[in-house]
Amino acid sequence: MELYQDADAPVADRVRDLLARMTLTEKVGQVNQRMYGWDAYERTAQGHRLTDAFREEVARFEGMGALYGLQRADPWSGVTFGDGITAADGARVADAVQRHVIENTRLGIPVLMVEEVPHGHQALDGTVLPVNLAVGATWDPDLYREAAAAAAAELRARGGHIALVSALDLVRDPRWGRAEECFGEDPYLAARLTEALVEGMQGTGEAFGADRVAVVLKHFAGQGSSVGGRNSAATEIGARELHEIHLPAALAGVRAGAAGVMAAYNEFDGLPCAASHDLLSGLLRERWGFEGLVMADGCALDRLVRLAGDRPSAAALALSAGTDLSLWDGVFPELGTAVERGLVPTGVLDTAVARVLTLKFRLGLFERPYVAEGPERAAHTRELSERIARASITLLHNDAAVLPLAPEAKRIAVIGPNADSIPQQIGDYTAPQRPDSGVSVLAGLREAGADVTYARGCDLVGDDRSGIAEAVALAAASDVAVLVLGGSSAREHDTRFDDNGAAIIATGNPTEMTCGEGVDLADVRLGAGQRALAEAVAATGTPCVAVLIQGRPHAVSELAEQAGALVSAWYPGPWGGRAVADVLLGACEPSGRLPVSVPRSSGQLPVFYNSKDHGFRGYVDEPGTPLYPFGHGLSYTTTEFGSPHVSDGVCEVEVTNTGDRPVRETVQLYVRRVGGATSWPRVRELRGFRRVDLAPGERATVAFPLDDTVLASVTRSLDLAVEPGTYEIETGRSSDSTQSVTLTI
Amino acid sequence: MELYQDADAPVADRVRDLLARMTLTEKVGQVNQRMYGWDAYERTAQGHRLTDAFREEVARFEGMGALYGLQRADPWSGVTFGDGITAADGARVADAVQRHVIENTRLGIPVLMVEEVPHGHQALDGTVLPVNLAVGATWDPDLYREAAAAAAAELRARGGHIALVSALDLVRDPRWGRAEECFGEDPYLAARLTEALVEGMQGTGEAFGADRVAVVLKHFAGQGSSVGGRNSAATEIGARELHEIHLPAALAGVRAGAAGVMAAYNEFDGLPCAASHDLLSGLLRERWGFEGLVMADGCALDRLVRLAGDRPSAAALALSAGTDLSLWDGVFPELGTAVERGLVPTGVLDTAVARVLTLKFRLGLFERPYVAEGPERAAHTRELSERIARASITLLHNDAAVLPLAPEAKRIAVIGPNADSIPQQIGDYTAPQRPDSGVSVLAGLREAGADVTYARGCDLVGDDRSGIAEAVALAAASDVAVLVLGGSSAREHDTRFDDNGAAIIATGNPTEMTCGEGVDLADVRLGAGQRALAEAVAATGTPCVAVLIQGRPHAVSELAEQAGALVSAWYPGPWGGRAVADVLLGACEPSGRLPVSVPRSSGQLPVFYNSKDHGFRGYVDEPGTPLYPFGHGLSYTTTEFGSPHVSDGVCEVEVTNTGDRPVRETVQLYVRRVGGATSWPRVRELRGFRRVDLAPGERATVAFPLDDTVLASVTRSLDLAVEPGTYEIETGRSSDSTQSVTLTI
Repeated sequence: MELYQDADAPVADRVRDLLARMTLTEKVGQVNQRMYGWDAYERTAQGHRLTDAFREEVARFEGMGALYGLQRADPWSGVTFGDGITAADGARVADAVQRHVIENTRLGIPVLMVEEVPHGHQALDGTVLPVNLAVGATWDPDLYREAAAAAAAELRARGGHIALVSALDLVRDPRWGRAEECFGEDPYLAARLTEALVEGMQGTGEAFGADRVAVVLKHFAGQGSSVGGRNSAATEIGARELHEIHLPAALAGVRAGAAGVMAAYNEFDGLPCAASHDLLSGLLRERWGFEGLVMADGCALDRLVRLAGDRPSAAALALSAGTDLSLWDGVFPELGTAVERGLVPTGVLDTAVARVLTLKFRLGLFERPYVAEGPERAAHTRELSERIARASITLLHNDAAVLPLAPEAKRIAVIGPNADSIPQQIGDYTAPQRPDSGVSVLAGLREAGADVTYARGCDLVGDDRSGIAEAVALAAASDVAVLVLGGSSAREHDTRFDDNGAAIIATGNPTEMTCGEGVDLADVRLGAGQRALAEAVAATGTPCVAVLIQGRPHAVSELAEQAGALVSAWYPGPWGGRAVADVLLGACEPSGRLPVSVPRSSGQLPVFYNSKDHGFRGYVDEPGTPLYPFGHGLSYTTTEFGSPHVSDGVCEVEVTNTGDRPVRETVQLYVRRVGGATSWPRVRELRGFRRVDLAPGERATVAFPLDDTVLASVTRSLDLAVEPGTYEIETGRSSDSTQSVTLTI
Repeated sequence: MELYQDADAPVADRVRDLLARMTLTEKVGQVNQRMYGWDAYERTAQGHRLTDAFREEVARFEGMGALYGLQRADPWSGVTFGDGITAADGARVADAVQRHVIENTRLGIPVLMVEEVPHGHQALDGTVLPVNLAVGATWDPDLYREAAAAAAAELRARGGHIALVSALDLVRDPRWGRAEECFGEDPYLAARLTEALVEGMQGTGEAFGADRVAVVLKHFAGQGSSVGGRNSAATEIGARELHEIHLPAALAGVRAGAAGVMAAYNEFDGLPCAASHDLLSGLLRERWGFEGLVMADGCALDRLVRLAGDRPSAAALALSAGTDLSLWDGVFPELGTAVERGLVPTGVLDTAVARVLTLKFRLGLFERPYVAEGPERAAHTRELSERIARASITLLHNDAAVLPLAPEAKRIAVIGPNADSIPQQIGDYTAPQRPDSGVSVLAGLREAGADVTYARGCDLVGDDRSGIAEAVALAAASDVAVLVLGGSSAREHDTRFDDNGAAIIATGNPTEMTCGEGVDLADVRLGAGQRALAEAVAATGTPCVAVLIQGRPHAVSELAEQAGALVSAWYPGPWGGRAVADVLLGACEPSGRLPVSVPRSSGQLPVFYNSKDHGFRGYVDEPGTPLYPFGHGLSYTTTEFGSPHVSDGVCEVEVTNTGDRPVRETVQLYVRRVGGATSWPRVRELRGFRRVDLAPGERATVAFPLDDTVLASVTRSLDLAVEPGTYEIETGRSSDSTQSVTLTI
């Protein structure tokens, strides 16, 4: 037995031993991830067959570093239930792929199987979780950790090893179609959820358990601040904005042990992230001590040819910067040429190869390359998906106490283009769903036994008003109208795609997509037809509840006036309709809190609670404040918050349920630097939160230790440290409803 | 005679000698500019009298570094023709101030008199020039140099020494109310105009002529990129964006010899500019070799107390960073305490004092402290004001060839809230005008002998439609309707102001201001009333010309459809109405070119031609392209551009007037880096322009030497250098209409 085959040897020794045996071509093979996984197989009458293209790719490099998306299914890949890999086939096909690689290469190095798991595995029968923005609205890392573990187990049971998961991007501009992939606008909230993601999927410890996978966190860094909320546009922000806002989630993920990060498309300081030595080496490796993998984004390295001149030079540029593994590009396959031409030393390539090999060892692929038989996982994930949906539903206003719907509100008119569509409630990066799966809002209300009528009312986009009359008639004849509006990231059969899978949306396309990768929106109001529908339905005088199924916070000032109650259900996943119904009917208390500020219009963007504190007053034609602030969310009861008290380095605050229903309150801790720091402070910064369950009349004291994670800020040298000065420690129910105590350090 | 009094001694020697004689208090006095100038005098029946407050301020520091705005008049200062200083009084009052300072202080150091000259001297009888955005539309540095010289002479003849002039800010987001103070969106255009400004006002050479003044360029740096176009908000941009976009105008001004720059309010990398050693010392002094003065913006240093803890520490922070002279703040008066406490070495204070004294010597104030008799200047400035107005008028479209108005279009209905208001056509930072001065568009058309009727039609803001019917009747009964719409920066008597003079605009104020400092707009469309008016007038079927009087590019997609011709006249100054009339009637050819991209909506902001080249495709609901591109502007004739040719380091292009009227065409040169640079390139970058006058049928060859100013870009180390690579050299009539030739370096 060779040293690298010795399961008891330290991983580092095994890697060194194996590396020493490898040819340049084999090394280059290990840092490449060229194929679309769905090109690796064909489904025939006899089952799945590996393609010649796959065999040739393995042969070309005497091995394969990673195979992307073997089980991916969606309109872009073109994979459907007719020709794809279902849950029943996944393990078998994955094993066939692995067996081919191991048995047909000189060294038999197993291949990493990489899958998109943005919110559940994007594969046929992969269990869909609510999108990250919904997860953000739960403010519940524990629940998300559990769901992430379930998704990981489901993935591993089908042969996947690496989950690509969006976590690091922030919604700094909700025009961006990928807002749904973010945990919200806030670095602290995103950091806690990113930690939970990594812990849930990977577990803790050097080696991964048999039901765990490695996580590659997307995207590093700053992609949420692209100019104009435009996908793939530049990021103009400076180092401080990057450090204060965009890096905390990545740092939390790295500290939690994330196996990898994906270099973002956007540039920073004139260099695409995959080519930025400052970011990938100076910051990530040297400053943070990250020892994992940096994966390129899809075809991102091809873009570097423009700067570098040719492919080998582009390959050398990215590798030298700190990119370890390609994705679909034609650049990293030229690394052999780059080394031979002396554009990059072999040692740098060896380091990247070592990172890939290390992960394979840590995953146990040399010892257990094939899928272990395990229990059926999907039911557990499904339950967690629905729990997240429930926890994410955010009650924005309920002035008329329309909610929960009174038992005497028997006739319910369910109206709107998002009332009865599973594809429209699951978000982007999702596979085709089986016809009978999922529960729409309409179905959820029906299931609950409500007396429901339904009219679509209008299309999601455009201004066709032909369906409004029917909806109005229905509303007029009912006790309450439930308007289900919002956006959609459902890709259609005729959607065109870019090389990297982003939708290509020409302005004015007759598409019903308003969100998702490549689908940015200039005007974040609802479509004109939806607005007309809401106005007409509200005008009937029938009490009206508006439910928003959405992947971004839409600007809904008028709707907020028209509807007695307003609920954001985000993209709640396939079973989200049941969650919505339960909240509307009072079977479940609403407990979501806004992970983003809800804007009044595109004209006031960007709007977030943690802007720099420069006393900005607002526009002459519109306030500078959001329609609903970050952290906001109502319950069906009332709560009272005491003033915070600080003693012995702990901040305590009392919360009382003063109403007659139970509540899950989210106590939020903000820090406001009021004097003495070395850089200009923000208005306030979230630095802690606790969920607390209170029965009617119950009181609880919530304690926050005021440690460095609460008080530290980014110093002039861009380190994190607690600077002497004066701080307001604020606690409350949302970012615009806090009480404070002064702390001098 | 002491050395410092010897006019023949080198300035540096005089400064050193004088400094050595000064007490700490006297030094502190020289770097302070505490008073509002209008508090220094009272007008009585017997004339202007110096106030006790002024005398006390001089006594307090045994001298006075600078006096701000002695002659300023506007609603903020509260100065009017009833109590202010007119042209007839200016020299006498200024001399009285100077005499008091010289004769009542130990060393008799003259005071610098500092005035706002954003577009003409902001004083009673000060001749108003069109705003900078209009100057930008002329693309004519020669004309502007002449106007700047005229304004300087006018100022000096009234006793002013330093002109504060906005020049460095760029319109990167037209929501910003100070867009009117910018030369446009483009660094190169702004750089050429900033150069012209400095050359025109200061002349060249070490000493200033008797009709010249020193220029302090506002604002350094990056203020045009404040978040959300919000005045005083943070600037999040990084060093590269700063260097590529926001610094070229400043660098050009410094190289042209600008006497000073004003540190901007905004922060950069967490520090307000006035506290940024990196900006004010590292970059400005050390890298660029700037030897002039850095002045703080109004009350800006007071804000530093939040960081520094107390006033002396804030003073030390700003002085150490490189700020030399205060403005109204309570911080720099504490510099003595700061030095005594050891917070900053005396040597640092001496350097700042030396900079102030040097400027006083260069201005000849020790030899000629009082105002020289000179010719009356205003008529010359007025002529130049009107020439700039003419040159700035930008014809955006003329599809129906409605313009120039045919002689048979006899009955002209002039309609709109900007048709007959001088205050609304002069912009912000202007003094009250004499009742009989100026020519509105309505008056201009009448003066030209047109048969004109007039209806205001609607208010500038709001949605009152009561005046529309009258306007529609007028239009229906006319041969052509001239709609004069847009915005206004006219401050009103009841406008409230911030400490620093910015208007305080509460959202929903019943104000007619839509622009100006402190007046930012979320929705850059015209007001609802104006839009309704345009729609109604256009619906009459009477041919319609729309003229926009505006301080920012408004989003006018619908108006562009409704009107046969669309003209932007910017804020054309008091006599701009005559210029507009002449262009409409064909007495003058339109020759303005857009200095900014005209957006389609606030939702697509920011939109500029020189964005980073990342292949952005547009929003799903709106294109990413502007309504009209940077550099665009039509003539009343047609022109043809040949392909560019490069030989011997010169790019040549032929332009032909193919129509039947004369033209002043603006040939634009753009550079597009297509390969090989060290940072990601922009779509294209303006690097040259030439105006060329062509008679009908005439052809000319325009030549651009391809020197470093054309080809250089910002390197990784943030220097300017020509990097090897492939370039497209593009020439054409606008940023979206070019032909190119490839150049490899």
